[in-house]
Amino acid sequence: MGDQSVKSALLLAAASLAISSAAHAEEGMWTMDAFPTEQMRKIYGWAPDKAWLDRVQAAAVRLTGGCSASFVSDAGLILTNHHCVRSCVQALSTAEQDYIKAGYNPATREEERTCPGQQAEVVTSISDVTPTVKQAIGASTGEALVKARDAVIARLEKEGCTDTATTRCQVVSLFGGGQYKLYKYRKYSDVRLAWAPSEQAAFFGGDPDNFNFPRYAMDAAFLRAYENGKPVSTPAHLTWNPRAPEAGEVTFTVGNPGSTQRLLTETQRAFARDVQYPIVIPLFAELRGRLIAAMEGDPERARTGADLLAGIENSYKAQTGYWGALRNPAFAANLAEQEAELRAKVAADAALKAKVGDPWGAIEEIDEKRRQLYLDYLFLESLGGGFSELYDYAQTIVRAAAEREKPNGERLPGYTDSALPLLEKSLTDAQPIYPWLEELNLAFWLSKTREYLKTDTPAVQRLLGKESPEGLAERLVEGTRLADPAVRKALFEGGMAAVKASKDPLIQFVLKADADARAVRRKWEAEVTGPTAVANAKLADARFGVYGDTLYPDATFTLRISYGSVKGWDERGTPVPPTTKFAGLYERATGAVPYDLPSEFAAAKGKIDMATVYNFVTTNDIIGGNSGSPVIARDGSVIGAAFDGNIHMLGGNFGYDPVLNRTVVVSTAAVQEALEVVYPNQRLMRELAAK
Amino acid sequence: MGDQSVKSALLLAAASLAISSAAHAEEGMWTMDAFPTEQMRKIYGWAPDKAWLDRVQAAAVRLTGGCSASFVSDAGLILTNHHCVRSCVQALSTAEQDYIKAGYNPATREEERTCPGQQAEVVTSISDVTPTVKQAIGASTGEALVKARDAVIARLEKEGCTDTATTRCQVVSLFGGGQYKLYKYRKYSDVRLAWAPSEQAAFFGGDPDNFNFPRYAMDAAFLRAYENGKPVSTPAHLTWNPRAPEAGEVTFTVGNPGSTQRLLTETQRAFARDVQYPIVIPLFAELRGRLIAAMEGDPERARTGADLLAGIENSYKAQTGYWGALRNPAFAANLAEQEAELRAKVAADAALKAKVGDPWGAIEEIDEKRRQLYLDYLFLESLGGGFSELYDYAQTIVRAAAEREKPNGERLPGYTDSALPLLEKSLTDAQPIYPWLEELNLAFWLSKTREYLKTDTPAVQRLLGKESPEGLAERLVEGTRLADPAVRKALFEGGMAAVKASKDPLIQFVLKADADARAVRRKWEAEVTGPTAVANAKLADARFGVYGDTLYPDATFTLRISYGSVKGWDERGTPVPPTTKFAGLYERATGAVPYDLPSEFAAAKGKIDMATVYNFVTTNDIIGGNSGSPVIARDGSVIGAAFDGNIHMLGGNFGYDPVLNRTVVVSTAAVQEALEVVYPNQRLMRELAAK
Repeated sequence: MGDQSVKSALLLAAASLAISSAAHAEEGMWTMDAFPTEQMRKIYGWAPDKAWLDRVQAAAVRLTGGCSASFVSDAGLILTNHHCVRSCVQALSTAEQDYIKAGYNPATREEERTCPGQQAEVVTSISDVTPTVKQAIGASTGEALVKARDAVIARLEKEGCTDTATTRCQVVSLFGGGQYKLYKYRKYSDVRLAWAPSEQAAFFGGDPDNFNFPRYAMDAAFLRAYENGKPVSTPAHLTWNPRAPEAGEVTFTVGNPGSTQRLLTETQRAFARDVQYPIVIPLFAELRGRLIAAMEGDPERARTGADLLAGIENSYKAQTGYWGALRNPAFAANLAEQEAELRAKVAADAALKAKVGDPWGAIEEIDEKRRQLYLDYLFLESLGGGFSELYDYAQTIVRAAAEREKPNGERLPGYTDSALPLLEKSLTDAQPIYPWLEELNLAFWLSKTREYLKTDTPAVQRLLGKESPEGLAERLVEGTRLADPAVRKALFEGGMAAVKASKDPLIQFVLKADADARAVRRKWEAEVTGPTAVANAKLADARFGVYGDTLYPDATFTLRISYGSVKGWDERGTPVPPTTKFAGLYERATGAVPYDLPSEFAAAKGKIDMATVYNFVTTNDIIGGNSGSPVIARDGSVIGAAFDGNIHMLGGNFGYDPVLNRTVVVSTAAVQEALEVVYPNQRLMRELAAK
Repeated sequence: MGDQSVKSALLLAAASLAISSAAHAEEGMWTMDAFPTEQMRKIYGWAPDKAWLDRVQAAAVRLTGGCSASFVSDAGLILTNHHCVRSCVQALSTAEQDYIKAGYNPATREEERTCPGQQAEVVTSISDVTPTVKQAIGASTGEALVKARDAVIARLEKEGCTDTATTRCQVVSLFGGGQYKLYKYRKYSDVRLAWAPSEQAAFFGGDPDNFNFPRYAMDAAFLRAYENGKPVSTPAHLTWNPRAPEAGEVTFTVGNPGSTQRLLTETQRAFARDVQYPIVIPLFAELRGRLIAAMEGDPERARTGADLLAGIENSYKAQTGYWGALRNPAFAANLAEQEAELRAKVAADAALKAKVGDPWGAIEEIDEKRRQLYLDYLFLESLGGGFSELYDYAQTIVRAAAEREKPNGERLPGYTDSALPLLEKSLTDAQPIYPWLEELNLAFWLSKTREYLKTDTPAVQRLLGKESPEGLAERLVEGTRLADPAVRKALFEGGMAAVKASKDPLIQFVLKADADARAVRRKWEAEVTGPTAVANAKLADARFGVYGDTLYPDATFTLRISYGSVKGWDERGTPVPPTTKFAGLYERATGAVPYDLPSEFAAAKGKIDMATVYNFVTTNDIIGGNSGSPVIARDGSVIGAAFDGNIHMLGGNFGYDPVLNRTVVVSTAAVQEALEVVYPNQRLMRELAAK
């Protein structure tokens, strides 16, 4: 799976569930302050109490790279997935010492190495700021709404976290604008790699087996949070429980699902199905092809491009699955029916109708604008620079310079006082830069921008001038000095004067290009996101009015809990058992990539306990961003780390199917066995065993 | 444009046009024996008579590579597009002597060089064999229908052309099975390259300008038909008329549109929109990406991969346009309305209803099977081997060996006696083979087959065994000797005994893989194409019953004529003039690919007449396969060669829009000027000038 992958649950189904059946029992990514205790108790005869939930919340970690995790020792040890630390492992590697291939298994704590750009965060409080935000917005719409909202959010976040060295505040919009909550985090900005298996062990079966099950993947890793050069003390950690899961036992996932689209209207789903995916999927397909071919036969490129390729392939497969669900006639009909039901119920309730109005009609009107603006917004702003790290640096520097000259409340989100510390960390942490990859990414973005927006469009002509995409990309990458963190730091600290004075070609390019990007962003906000927020607030009113308040919001990369159980499923009549064992890895290995047995597993063959449960599936409702979430047993101990969904789960972006959707987990038992005989590490085993 | 690109015309609109308005005057790809004389006369006050049509038909050439053309001198000189001879130019080139870059401008006739695999064909008669074919089919359905139909076609083709050295017979199914016609061709199997401009001149603006207008492309070339080593005598040629087109003047295109989908039902369009394009477009996108990156920075790969890349990019853009039309709500609603109208009219006519039954319902039933079988059919049979030339050779050898052991009437289409001569020519003509490209193509096909059909599918396991797609592709390409035409010839002639005895790894691989490919093909024919032919025949009855017999069939890569006129259009309120001039080429050139001025045009700058019309647009209704079609004036002379459509024309695959759809033409005036001062060739100019 990945940072933006897959999960499960139909809001409207969930809503009716609150009233009636247990059919969709496992559906829902619940906020910690609204756990459906009664509902779970009805089904399982038990539900966690507030103390249980508080303990779990205190141990739940968000990784700013886009993953979830948990503390599993009292010395800041963090369990997550290998694919969540993959970028870090690659950044720490060189052509001579490739930890992606070999794994990283330091003998001492002193050898644990800092992951650039990574920050770990633990929620310490959640407060409802809906009245404050809604009051600030008032009756404003369009651009005015966006400005008013962003200003009050900037203020709330700044006031909420005065100690910016150890805390972070974020206001999150739930139900697309129906609710606003202020999350306060304890943050740890020095996160080090404590253990990682080899990529081949972590991602055995590669892209073909991704989102599939049965599965044999050691997709686990350990990080450690440091402060002032020392491991942080984390007494509120989960208990490491290296036992096999039992079929049918209750499981919880606690993590940060990134994004779901379960509350979209029919109009918005049609946009996704007919406009967005048909553009984005082929883009990813071509970039994937370019990367594969550019890496073919060149070991150093194969090494340095692998992380981006893995990300692209994961995202491509996930999005292909989301899209496929929308094109599945039965799935689509079910969603349409649920919208029709909600609309009928609103229409039948005069008071509610008067309060709600016609948000569906409003969204249809927005849709026309959205279709007109989408390509410009996508290529000039949303995908600006493609996957070029250097372009990101340049744009961050240029925008930060412009935004920091404004009062806090008038800045773009991401450049407010509450956001600056992480921004500065991301910008100035040392990261390896691979020029061939930068050129490939920039040339791809420039050439696709010309292809979709057309050669003769003024914004395209301003981007390219008389240069070709490839020539321009080469000139910018060869000429820029932004690969050097000191150069980035100096420009960031020098503000607009330094930026304007800079002779760096990429800085100058972005300074010029950013006018068009900002213009289309303003238009998009005024005509699309602003009006959509108004309509969404009305839709939230409609849902609460019809189904009561036992609803969960779409995923927002904030802490959520899901309950479920260890359970296989029927694949076209054939039962798929809920667990795999180490023996299966050796049976599935063919000797050819991506099914070649990792050499360390080949070496450990005689020592490994073949009956150990390797991976397992549960009915928990997760999606991309949940990667690394602890899978927690009833007693609060951790028995696995969620790392994927099965293929049916991809529809979960739009709706949860309790019959087929499954979360895929690497068991703590397997990790324990690996630490015992495959990657021997008595130090970590002792630490995990301490209660 | 390209061999399988774009054109225009809604059958149902065309049908109503026969009854009422002139709104869609220019719509229609008419068979030569059913020209709508009355209709054209009503609009233009004139229409060609039978003698005019016969003269044009005698000069119209089909190129088996997938293009159209015409004789333009009495010594077998053929006008077509550069992109239609591009493969030939590349095949004749080497790293040292690259005619793609330099153009090919032989000083003498003796230097004209044979294009491998190319055959030129002129229709000599068309006869209606519908009763014979329908009688043979009788009431059979499914696989039995396919067998009966193929057997009678094999017999008719064999009996129709006893002189297989100079003639070729083909039975073509029109209206998807509503009519069957026997086309007899005079064939010329020695076709030589007589003149080609540089690729940069022919394809100035490259992919970004493809399907766009204004345009500045010398997309023209000359071939020459030879027989017994001498140019053939072609007194029935078109008159070369190097004058500028006049706005509003009547134009005809005469050529071989490859394929349109204007007669699909709503169910079939939904399949294309929701199943076929969402799979095929990303496949093409990824292959495009792989090619671009594999060619980047390697001049010899850039040279040898360019032809395939150009083909893929052209096809990708065309299909993206077709698909976009189906996702355009207004366009789709229009098509849906027309189907509803036809169905209502059938329902209102009891006799017709009784005759026609419910073909729409039948197609819905077929659709379920089609969706189930599509992926297997696509990857194992339809796309088998991907774009690997060597795989094609191997499969042709293996299938020919198997099929030739059967009686003529029981063979697969393509392996009947009437088809064997061209098959043998294609198989045994010498062609350069580029191993890197073969490996890329085979590995791509194998890896996508595994991705879409899944690792654990038996057919995939039989394909790959324990090898990786990349490893298997490398082993096959490195081990095979099929790049040698003599090896291919010996295997072809040796039949199944030779094939089975061969140690060639690719032959052995295909021998093994072909069982699954043939099995899915049989299933597809029995459950999809067979039943569809039955339903289509009923639909044809419905259309003829409602709209009378002034209908044109979907394109079938057989000779068609379209009438129209020289005319610009309004692009979102801005008028686009119908012609461009040479001056515009120099203005558009930026110096960077693909907008770099061709060096020979830079050199000729002082000599060229800047006011000469370069390209122009007409309202003619064409599609891919029409590339190279002569654009003919009222007096029967040729004033251009059609080479593209504008971007709006891409919807023409499903329906013609008279307001926006345009054919893009390179003018004879521009070609004449090029022969005069850019690529001086007095020899060809004299030949063209002779009446």
